[in-house]
Amino acid sequence: MPRILSGQFVAAVLLSFLALALALATALARGADPLPSWSDGTAKARVLDFVQAVTDASGKGYVAAPERIAVFDNDGTLWSEQPAYFQLLFALDRVRVLASQHPQWQSQQPFKAALEGDMKALASFGEKGLLELIMATHAGMTTAEFEAVVRDWIASARHPIFNRLYTDLVYQPMLELLAFLRENGFKTYIVSGGGIEFMRPWVERVYGVPPEQVIGSSIRTRYEVREGKPVIVRLAEIDFIDDKAGKPIGIHRFIGRRPIAAFGNSDGDFQMLEWVTSQPGRTLGLIVHHDDGAREFAYNRRSHIGKLDRGLDEAATRGWVLLSIKADWNKVYPSFSR
Amino acid sequence: MPRILSGQFVAAVLLSFLALALALATALARGADPLPSWSDGTAKARVLDFVQAVTDASGKGYVAAPERIAVFDNDGTLWSEQPAYFQLLFALDRVRVLASQHPQWQSQQPFKAALEGDMKALASFGEKGLLELIMATHAGMTTAEFEAVVRDWIASARHPIFNRLYTDLVYQPMLELLAFLRENGFKTYIVSGGGIEFMRPWVERVYGVPPEQVIGSSIRTRYEVREGKPVIVRLAEIDFIDDKAGKPIGIHRFIGRRPIAAFGNSDGDFQMLEWVTSQPGRTLGLIVHHDDGAREFAYNRRSHIGKLDRGLDEAATRGWVLLSIKADWNKVYPSFSR
Repeated sequence: MPRILSGQFVAAVLLSFLALALALATALARGADPLPSWSDGTAKARVLDFVQAVTDASGKGYVAAPERIAVFDNDGTLWSEQPAYFQLLFALDRVRVLASQHPQWQSQQPFKAALEGDMKALASFGEKGLLELIMATHAGMTTAEFEAVVRDWIASARHPIFNRLYTDLVYQPMLELLAFLRENGFKTYIVSGGGIEFMRPWVERVYGVPPEQVIGSSIRTRYEVREGKPVIVRLAEIDFIDDKAGKPIGIHRFIGRRPIAAFGNSDGDFQMLEWVTSQPGRTLGLIVHHDDGAREFAYNRRSHIGKLDRGLDEAATRGWVLLSIKADWNKVYPSFSR
Repeated sequence: MPRILSGQFVAAVLLSFLALALALATALARGADPLPSWSDGTAKARVLDFVQAVTDASGKGYVAAPERIAVFDNDGTLWSEQPAYFQLLFALDRVRVLASQHPQWQSQQPFKAALEGDMKALASFGEKGLLELIMATHAGMTTAEFEAVVRDWIASARHPIFNRLYTDLVYQPMLELLAFLRENGFKTYIVSGGGIEFMRPWVERVYGVPPEQVIGSSIRTRYEVREGKPVIVRLAEIDFIDDKAGKPIGIHRFIGRRPIAAFGNSDGDFQMLEWVTSQPGRTLGLIVHHDDGAREFAYNRRSHIGKLDRGLDEAATRGWVLLSIKADWNKVYPSFSR
């Protein structure tokens, strides 16, 4: 029966090829570098080793998937924060748009500095000053209206130095890290001093982090029924500042369990890293050090924005990874370089 | 070649049986009732129809999986709330335990009523009175210490009427509904007037809802480093009451997107249902009406606990399902009946 034998032979050959292709694909997938924009070195090795340890069911460092929670600061950790927090630049744009309705802003701080574009004066008002600007420029607006304003801005506004969309200034190595952690069963959260409603409209598209996994600073809101339709109105009162000791508070409030990995870049992230890494079991704390003035920005102890002082001094003794953008990342932005 | 033919024949028969078994298993799985404790009727049909509509990718009512968020009140919706909110009974137990350290409680309300077990007087202090009791009985404790107290209590305390663990008083039909929604790509959240930290230690085990999907009332906390170890301390100040108009506020704060299904039982859930069902696209609002004094408890318009008045009047015009425990549930509790 040559025809049948021939058919069996063809089938066997096809099956062999299929098996070979599958084996190859699996080997390639296993061998592929999950963090190609990270240069070989201590930082990359520590990250890979941590993920290996907590996912190895037979090892001492194993952590069950539901407990694999990783928290990321946003400004200076997932995207750039120079020459100012991008949310501050957003607020300045809003101040300009709304200034004609508020003549008193010409002489009233921090609005005066905002209209004059005096970044140094503005920085001196700190995170709280930024929140004041945001509140004043968005009070009385519904959450849906605010979301539309943010969506418009993020899709069109351009960074003053790079003349690029702000979302082009996310860090490619961190996109890879977020994806790698999720592939390994982690739930990735953003824990930012920035406004929670400023981030939620775009972080899912850009970082793959859904709105319910975003923790941030917030203003108070009020539920109202307008002509039979319920709305949530944004009020001109600070509700919560998700910075410094506020970060572990926010994490506890929103997540209700202790993450095992934390990524930050400034002293505003110190307590978050402290909270995450001061518990039994395997944990990872990592600080992004902005030391690459050529490809990004170089700043640390004396910066108004993203000041890193205590973190630089204590990272080693606390066992935190101090990542050098210059040495540890071979690529900074996904689609362009400075 | 009879042996080869025979081998092929046996293989063919085995394969046929396998195919048949698979087809049968699939048919059984499809035909199995996902809500066996729900009696046939409008409530069950509306729930099944809603889930079918939002998961049918070819239909007009389709909702992408990340937007499939369902919110559940807890007291009176997922478990019983009579003769008092179980968290109030927990607080009373704590008042008794701590009374010797606080002699002034003998004459100070709401502690006096608590020590006297005067439930009617206590109910008159409302949700806020309950929160005052909780704050006073837990102030100065760390979140980890409080969690341990809750875990001990929920594992040992018994319902005053049924002499059962409180977690035995969850509703079997709602356990089925939670599982059914999750099988259909829903993320299920609890949105309760009860304390967020009172629920988180046990709801994952009992309802399959992880701590990060619990929204509730809260007291303020403070981050502190004690002998080099960070802790979060619970303060005697109300932070947020997640009831009535607070529910949509809490949903917006924690989730940041609008759920498409809401389940409640009292007027405290009114605004949550209103918020969820006042949007374009397919939504579901459902109110559990406690009308079964034989198997559970019968109460509505005049109850101190779980008052349902406006919801009874407006459910029909708002298109909300008014579920009758008596008619729509053929089983109430998972492991016993009254």
